[in-house]
Amino acid sequence: MSEQLSYRDAGVDLDAADRAKVGLTELVASTADRFTLSELGAFGGLYQVPDSDGTPVLVSSADGVGTKLKLAFETGRHDTVGQCLVNHCVNDILVQGARPIFFLDYLAVGEMDEHVVKEVVRGVAVGCKENGCALLGGETAQMPDFYIPGEYDLAGFVVGIVDRENIVDGSRVESGDVLVGLDSSGLHTNGYTLARRIVFDVMGLCVEDQFPGTGRSVSDELLAVHRSYLPVFRGLLGSNVIRGLAHVTGGGIPGNLPRVLPDGLGAAVDRASWQVPPVFQALQDGGNVDRYEMDRVFNMGIGMIAIVSDNDVQTVISAAAEHGVGSRVIGRVEPGEGVEY
Amino acid sequence: MSEQLSYRDAGVDLDAADRAKVGLTELVASTADRFTLSELGAFGGLYQVPDSDGTPVLVSSADGVGTKLKLAFETGRHDTVGQCLVNHCVNDILVQGARPIFFLDYLAVGEMDEHVVKEVVRGVAVGCKENGCALLGGETAQMPDFYIPGEYDLAGFVVGIVDRENIVDGSRVESGDVLVGLDSSGLHTNGYTLARRIVFDVMGLCVEDQFPGTGRSVSDELLAVHRSYLPVFRGLLGSNVIRGLAHVTGGGIPGNLPRVLPDGLGAAVDRASWQVPPVFQALQDGGNVDRYEMDRVFNMGIGMIAIVSDNDVQTVISAAAEHGVGSRVIGRVEPGEGVEY
Repeated sequence: MSEQLSYRDAGVDLDAADRAKVGLTELVASTADRFTLSELGAFGGLYQVPDSDGTPVLVSSADGVGTKLKLAFETGRHDTVGQCLVNHCVNDILVQGARPIFFLDYLAVGEMDEHVVKEVVRGVAVGCKENGCALLGGETAQMPDFYIPGEYDLAGFVVGIVDRENIVDGSRVESGDVLVGLDSSGLHTNGYTLARRIVFDVMGLCVEDQFPGTGRSVSDELLAVHRSYLPVFRGLLGSNVIRGLAHVTGGGIPGNLPRVLPDGLGAAVDRASWQVPPVFQALQDGGNVDRYEMDRVFNMGIGMIAIVSDNDVQTVISAAAEHGVGSRVIGRVEPGEGVEY
Repeated sequence: MSEQLSYRDAGVDLDAADRAKVGLTELVASTADRFTLSELGAFGGLYQVPDSDGTPVLVSSADGVGTKLKLAFETGRHDTVGQCLVNHCVNDILVQGARPIFFLDYLAVGEMDEHVVKEVVRGVAVGCKENGCALLGGETAQMPDFYIPGEYDLAGFVVGIVDRENIVDGSRVESGDVLVGLDSSGLHTNGYTLARRIVFDVMGLCVEDQFPGTGRSVSDELLAVHRSYLPVFRGLLGSNVIRGLAHVTGGGIPGNLPRVLPDGLGAAVDRASWQVPPVFQALQDGGNVDRYEMDRVFNMGIGMIAIVSDNDVQTVISAAAEHGVGSRVIGRVEPGEGVEY
């Protein structure tokens, strides 16, 4: 049996990140004004349109692609990470009931390779088109002492809009509500520092090799585009069907589902209710990773969780199916706190 | 005489950046919808608030701090770069007549040092407070294979608002209008790759050394906070005084002033009308940099240019003086194109 690997061993310390946030709450709160409707920790920030009747609320979120970018560098495929970025940001505001209106990107490069820049921005533009939002601007920075030739960092910012009465914030979630889990398309954009360590260092694979158990190459599997759930939920926004939505990103289900549960409520998730995709099993086996750690780092096959009443379960499952996304009941909301498996 | 240094020698290729943009215009334009009011190349993107009467327009811009961050790493002073970032972004939407409403940051670190993260975000929050905008959210990413311990990248994204009739886009600029140049507070956030090369490699200075001719240390001079011009212009937004505003960032006056001049108009700038601050002269001498190159890389002491009619010159100069910012007439708008000195 190989040495057991954790996210922290791979260089990512989620606890330190949590501690850093604690000290920032007050500081960030001090900048809020009367139009600021959200607190630190929400998936997207909520801001009422000033000089309006208070109905339209802007929802905004920032994110990066993380070390998934290393796969782009290693394969020379730079046209998909932009889609991952847009879809990730779009999902983060979708969970508050918002549809995206515009997007901006930040691309920092070590050296200005016109081809690479175009491919990256092409991916961003494709992602914007697919989600029906305008690529309103961006910044391409040349920072030769920060990034080695051929490498870059990519971050994005989305602004969306939602009518105040249609904000999804989990406040309507009740004990007994049902968790519908929607298929992810792969790792999405989380856990890549650990995944790469396992795949390349421990398992000794190359990007062209087949990823064990998946029938796909390592590069295809690890560069799979982060799914946007906007098409599935677009028709349901503004209805009362959706009581809560959790985007399963860094922190996994245990880190993200509680963010949309009211105080006093937790969730019971049934591991056996869905089949964990082979890519996650291979990572777990390859790195001898604890299952608890896997749940905390990866989405384990569930990229989005919708919380609905019993009556509306089929509505969500049908909407997902219409857009080619598998889904099923994965658990229930219960009195308590956190997520129990 | 030492070898002559250019920005390109230091690793930054502005021409390649321009070429990369050319191929992107069509791509980005394809994402525009009926609410998108700006084209690629504007300081900030303009977006009409959907479902509104069309009056409020959102203006958004993304930017980074660039290699000025290296000074923060070298001095251990992490609380000012956030202010630089916010002020830079605020200026970029101010030039279209907008006041900021909210801001988001993206901070990517090699390792999670809670103290550094707090100091950086503290600077962002201070900048937001000073500009009266909410720090609505952000992302702190741990990317151990991208950034060496102690280093990070920082980008930001601002959203502002302007009434459609008050958008400043240079369309009212006429031949004969006057250019009022407002003092910068130093290098702002541009040209640091070249400046650092000159100061540390050619001149052989340390961060604690005195910067020649300035009476300040290298760290104080190079970490000086990028000035926000919002206080100066806040009272003038919505009046008809301001016909055009140019934020003098990468590309200098020749690269930024023409962005707000209508077709068929250029500008004549009188070099003798302001005293170039000693920091720029020292850089020019130290690196044996061509004056043309200096003008293209640095702001040369002028951080913002307001274009007004003869009658309104004093209004701007007085508003600047009220906020402790020096200003003077530096030239005129003329038939032609580009900037002539």
